Amino acid sequence: MVKKQKSQKSQHLLNLTTTKKRALESGHGYVALRNYATRMRIHSVESTTAAGSGHPTSCSSLADLMAVLFFDPSGMHYYPKDPRNCNNDKLVLSKGHAAPILYAAWAEAGFIPVADLITLRQITSNLEGHPTPRLEFVDVASGSLGQGLSAANGMAYSMKYLEGNSARVYCIMGDGECAEGSVWEAINFASHYQLDNLVAIVDVNRLGQSDPTMFQHDIDSYKAKFEAFGWNALAIDGHDYMHIVYAFEEARKTKNKPTAIIAKTYKGKDFTATIEDQENWHGKPIGNQTEEIVKHLTSLIQDTQETSEPVHPTETHPAIEAKHITIPAPNYTIGAQLATRNAYGEALRALGGVDERIVGLDGDTKNSTYACYFQQQYPQRFIECYIAEQNMVGVSLGLSCRGKIPFSSTFGAFFSRTYDQIRMSAVSLGNMKFAGSHCGVSIGEDGPSQMALEDLALFRSIPGSIVLYPSDAVSAWRAVELAANHKGIAFIRTSRPAFPVLYENDKVFEAGKSYTIKHSDQDKITVIGAGVTLAEAVKAHDLLASEGIHIRVVDLFSVKPIDVAHLTEAARATEGKILTVEDHYQAGGIFEAVTSALAQEHFNIWGIFVNEIPRSGKPHELLDLYGLSAAKIALKVKEIIH
Amino acid sequence: MVKKQKSQKSQHLLNLTTTKKRALESGHGYVALRNYATRMRIHSVESTTAAGSGHPTSCSSLADLMAVLFFDPSGMHYYPKDPRNCNNDKLVLSKGHAAPILYAAWAEAGFIPVADLITLRQITSNLEGHPTPRLEFVDVASGSLGQGLSAANGMAYSMKYLEGNSARVYCIMGDGECAEGSVWEAINFASHYQLDNLVAIVDVNRLGQSDPTMFQHDIDSYKAKFEAFGWNALAIDGHDYMHIVYAFEEARKTKNKPTAIIAKTYKGKDFTATIEDQENWHGKPIGNQTEEIVKHLTSLIQDTQETSEPVHPTETHPAIEAKHITIPAPNYTIGAQLATRNAYGEALRALGGVDERIVGLDGDTKNSTYACYFQQQYPQRFIECYIAEQNMVGVSLGLSCRGKIPFSSTFGAFFSRTYDQIRMSAVSLGNMKFAGSHCGVSIGEDGPSQMALEDLALFRSIPGSIVLYPSDAVSAWRAVELAANHKGIAFIRTSRPAFPVLYENDKVFEAGKSYTIKHSDQDKITVIGAGVTLAEAVKAHDLLASEGIHIRVVDLFSVKPIDVAHLTEAARATEGKILTVEDHYQAGGIFEAVTSALAQEHFNIWGIFVNEIPRSGKPHELLDLYGLSAAKIALKVKEIIH
Repeated sequence: MVKKQKSQKSQHLLNLTTTKKRALESGHGYVALRNYATRMRIHSVESTTAAGSGHPTSCSSLADLMAVLFFDPSGMHYYPKDPRNCNNDKLVLSKGHAAPILYAAWAEAGFIPVADLITLRQITSNLEGHPTPRLEFVDVASGSLGQGLSAANGMAYSMKYLEGNSARVYCIMGDGECAEGSVWEAINFASHYQLDNLVAIVDVNRLGQSDPTMFQHDIDSYKAKFEAFGWNALAIDGHDYMHIVYAFEEARKTKNKPTAIIAKTYKGKDFTATIEDQENWHGKPIGNQTEEIVKHLTSLIQDTQETSEPVHPTETHPAIEAKHITIPAPNYTIGAQLATRNAYGEALRALGGVDERIVGLDGDTKNSTYACYFQQQYPQRFIECYIAEQNMVGVSLGLSCRGKIPFSSTFGAFFSRTYDQIRMSAVSLGNMKFAGSHCGVSIGEDGPSQMALEDLALFRSIPGSIVLYPSDAVSAWRAVELAANHKGIAFIRTSRPAFPVLYENDKVFEAGKSYTIKHSDQDKITVIGAGVTLAEAVKAHDLLASEGIHIRVVDLFSVKPIDVAHLTEAARATEGKILTVEDHYQAGGIFEAVTSALAQEHFNIWGIFVNEIPRSGKPHELLDLYGLSAAKIALKVKEIIH
Repeated sequence: MVKKQKSQKSQHLLNLTTTKKRALESGHGYVALRNYATRMRIHSVESTTAAGSGHPTSCSSLADLMAVLFFDPSGMHYYPKDPRNCNNDKLVLSKGHAAPILYAAWAEAGFIPVADLITLRQITSNLEGHPTPRLEFVDVASGSLGQGLSAANGMAYSMKYLEGNSARVYCIMGDGECAEGSVWEAINFASHYQLDNLVAIVDVNRLGQSDPTMFQHDIDSYKAKFEAFGWNALAIDGHDYMHIVYAFEEARKTKNKPTAIIAKTYKGKDFTATIEDQENWHGKPIGNQTEEIVKHLTSLIQDTQETSEPVHPTETHPAIEAKHITIPAPNYTIGAQLATRNAYGEALRALGGVDERIVGLDGDTKNSTYACYFQQQYPQRFIECYIAEQNMVGVSLGLSCRGKIPFSSTFGAFFSRTYDQIRMSAVSLGNMKFAGSHCGVSIGEDGPSQMALEDLALFRSIPGSIVLYPSDAVSAWRAVELAANHKGIAFIRTSRPAFPVLYENDKVFEAGKSYTIKHSDQDKITVIGAGVTLAEAVKAHDLLASEGIHIRVVDLFSVKPIDVAHLTEAARATEGKILTVEDHYQAGGIFEAVTSALAQEHFNIWGIFVNEIPRSGKPHELLDLYGLSAAKIALKVKEIIH
């Protein structure tokens, strides 16, 4: 309702002196660059008109910046025929709805035929509505706004500190997306870690989807913010080639700080007065004005002898090769008490010792998740991300783009904050590992805000993910190794309390396998547990055995993929009865994973799960209150079998 | 690894002139205030020692600020015996781990007995590890950092613009949590909407959980950031009473801007030199040093004739009363094509006409979610939140604390970004409604980044939630009314494509009910659909009927609660066979909701769901590609029954 009126007075854009202008006049083919931009505008209009949907006006504001980035020596240095080359400067198009101009740029650069652009958004084309790594020149999928800069951070961090590669990273953001908090997490990170190989380009075209943006053309406001966050910030006219070239050159010269180029632009630039800088043109193809606008744009192309071509990189690092990782067996003692989060830290440290690709990340919880063990041994491969989990996930995606294997940890509950980033990481085909500690009510006194009770659902939903939930130190150790070798997203759920070591050190674990812990030929029911509920189920087994009631106890271990064969066999051997017990809510948890996997088997399956908002208390009191204690499990078993 | 060294030079704290100091000398009982602070420090130490866990050092840095806030006229104006009173100034303790000092303050204010403080974190006590609204003086649960300011925004916005109530809102944040992006979304919002009734207090105690914070005592950096974001920012010594009083008074005087008080403090202030400002004391009770420290603190209490008592508010607004809301029947025509997102907007507008409590929020997608219909009719009750979904959810929680009924909308996919906020809103007992549009692959060309495929799982996991998934305009209309009347969190999943109207305008819908659309006495299987898959299932019914195969088609409508009785009856009537079809991933979706609900029924249940990362394409092509089209449903039915 009450909105602050934004001043539309002229803002403090770059003011180039005559000397600077003179220096900028030579060595750049400005006419050629402008022709590239115009052709890319034409491609954006034609391809979206052909598709019947898309965002041509959001492309047009960006065209001049893209021309310099792709075709001027001040811009990216890359191999146009080898976009995946690790020595290339990299571009992350965070404002993914401008995909058509990204495709146009790679077509102009010669990587894809110009004729293919017209297949935009067709089911048989990889030129999707928003960029995905189905295209070789896309490292990071975008389309959910505000995420690109974090991934760019991860790439830039890796290049500068882990690879010694002087390649640079450019991230193009929209002005609207700067309202996303994740952007400011990323901005903080970049300056804290002095990522001077990173350039953020903000395409301030004033207009959002449904309204003008919060700050419209208040360029000074963006500049002040970036500066307050420790960046080198340059405010330029995003349609003035000297401004753009100057800004890219300044960014290359700036040491110890990332550079933000705040570009004042016009949405629909060079279309017509009825479209340029006008509302209600977001996400709309030009329709029946296409012919007229293409004609107008074509008239802007100038004859010239100038050429402007991409510059190749100078670095010659080899690509990082994927290989299987093996860690030695651990050295735990059966029956000894150890928390799985503790074993996680020990295994991660061991993993770090055998493979340089392993990188640890944490969000100021490393002394709780035990990522600190890795940090102590390999400080140069550990990244403290502070309390900014969304950026942590994005950084880990960027690391994964560089061939690293990032393990990110925090309390499992706080991964809920990063669901969108994890979802998008899957679209990006990220090879990323997550460890969520402090799951469930068994953490005790800290109360519901700290209890992960939806993390299994979250990570199960991710296509191609594996979800491992170890119940002792040996299986936790191996879960880390399995996660490292899984190609894709892996989640390990670790627990706060100590559990007894159950397995021999040489026990082999597999993703997709469950393990029977207790069995007899008189078992009346299969009880499936994991983590604290496996420990309680084992106690329930002993309680019930003393009353002459035998139950089979299965360590689920792999929540996804789920071990249909093992669970089926167990159920068949126990009168078709299963009871799952989990320190998690119902939706998407173990009970639902099991019932959906066995939905055509005619078994009887019961579940105990947390079904209200829990409270503070001692762990054993809470386990009992929510039905997860050995006593309550035993009671439930008796209720079922009698 | 490489971390920028933060300057530890003296920062630019407030410099009070002699005149200002003289003015501040009278009217405040500084000795009494300091005694309050010391007693609260003692309570924090003793209660955490008794509990054996907790964060006494994080309380101590805050004690002097709390003393002024609770007991000086410059601080909060409130009724100490009536903390829920809507005329009170409100406090949101965003750094929830400082809960013990909040409890201590209310004990000193006389609302709870001091003797109760020792029950901290016990299962029988509502003095939980982090604050929850089980306590009358807590409006918003905290403990997941970076969320408090958004809720404070919602309260302040409501007071200023919707209630005309001059009450004020104070939000206490830690320095570590300012790394959370959600904080910067909230900071943006507060200045954009000129919330001069809002004060953010940042307790800059330099130390995080596992390390010093990113900015340590760099007070200037915090001040510059808040100022760049448009706030009035005051940097003070958080242990100097004149500074604190001055800052609160300045905040009251400041118009059209929120005020940030950046307080330089010391963690463990007034404990011992071995604890104060030292690392490794986060989240640890004092243990065997308790006696010594309590003795030292007690020695700081000074005899005084001074008193300092809470000041009562002057406003006398009545509390908002809850009541049932009824909207008239819609006016749709059976068979007419309308998208459920469209009907959502129309119903919300109707709702706005019958109840002043209804508030609409959206994140720059209102012309896609159709929240714009509400905005056009009731602009004064619509809040544009821009592309900052986490803050939008927090604002809606704050509105709910003021008795409003907020309906927040965006693309369903983007609620994944707010999972932590929604999870915490449930702990806060928020009465909040969410509408996620653009679900599933049926959105078509925009591709996977824009497709909600995990939203049902997300909202099903929330304790006490209802999840409604309408398949036509009439049921969408009624879903909005049902959501408004549900006490708690409600989610409505709306769809992009148009579907035919299925129901008469006077049809009655209930949360927890499903509806049979097609049936005969020869049905071989029950097919359960919702949204686009119900439309496809109806087509499949017709296709199969032409081949003499009869299927029952059920409109699930209520995903949670699920209609066990209706589904059981349908399955029993159709040879115990069910096929669910959903435009959603497997985990936590319809298939799992159904299999878990019927897990002891011996039915055969099959599911069709999206089981890979989808791509761009036309809606009907994608439905077919992922098995959700009428043709594919018919094929699957034939495969099952033959």
